[in-house]
Amino acid sequence: MTRSTDAERRYLEEFAAGDRLDVPGSYEMTPERVREFAGAYDPQAIHLDEEAARGEFFGRLVASGWHGLAATARLMVEARPLGNTPLIGASIDNLKFLAPVLPGDVLRVEAEVLETRASRSRPDRGFMRLRLLTRRQDGTPVLTQEWTLLLPSNRHK
Amino acid sequence: MTRSTDAERRYLEEFAAGDRLDVPGSYEMTPERVREFAGAYDPQAIHLDEEAARGEFFGRLVASGWHGLAATARLMVEARPLGNTPLIGASIDNLKFLAPVLPGDVLRVEAEVLETRASRSRPDRGFMRLRLLTRRQDGTPVLTQEWTLLLPSNRHK
Repeated sequence: MTRSTDAERRYLEEFAAGDRLDVPGSYEMTPERVREFAGAYDPQAIHLDEEAARGEFFGRLVASGWHGLAATARLMVEARPLGNTPLIGASIDNLKFLAPVLPGDVLRVEAEVLETRASRSRPDRGFMRLRLLTRRQDGTPVLTQEWTLLLPSNRHK
Repeated sequence: MTRSTDAERRYLEEFAAGDRLDVPGSYEMTPERVREFAGAYDPQAIHLDEEAARGEFFGRLVASGWHGLAATARLMVEARPLGNTPLIGASIDNLKFLAPVLPGDVLRVEAEVLETRASRSRPDRGFMRLRLLTRRQDGTPVLTQEWTLLLPSNRHK
């Protein structure tokens, strides 16, 4: 691994509770994307059949909740909050589907560090807990979740 | 809504803690699917660049954790545990990425009811909590999570 690559890797010790991560991108939930994602991973009438969706819970077509989550993951990955250090998920807690994501919605993500802690068993790594909030274009929160990411530590250097 | 459709809808009161839901399908995590999903929703080198992935945490290409979750969702939807009643997620708790999913793995899902409870505010609905376990072909657990689904109640009828 070259030195220049190492220079762009970020470590657990560079983050602290209360930090906000910059997530500048947005994701447009186009009708084509709604159909394609639901067809592959969540093939239900509420996501795919406009007529049938009218008689169901939301009263209209809605995007798959998993699609909103996948879009949130993409915005986080594109934001590169850890530079060249990969985003590796250990666990997710307190995930709530707050409101449906509709075809045509544009999603943005906010991310705040809740906690960092060293691994007890492995001095070369640790965990960072983040609170993520996904909003649609009018500001309505649609998804919230807490990610625990596995990060390298620089304590052992 | 026709009577024959209603007959295939399932209600909160038809389930109880300890019930196991039948999830007969499997999902093959082909290299093409790994690339396609990661390209769209988790564009990291650990999922897309074989050479670069060797120098990272898993030491090889792995599927996106979100892809394993989306595959789990698809297997649950295809299993139709609620008949014509849609699967509508309210929240997810205690989600853990237990082991990486590798290109070529075949995933299966087990689902058990943990709890059912009526809504306090709305007599026509309630919640069912499920524990899901996703395993790869050799039986290794790769993902676990608890889904809380929103279900119609037949108390008000």
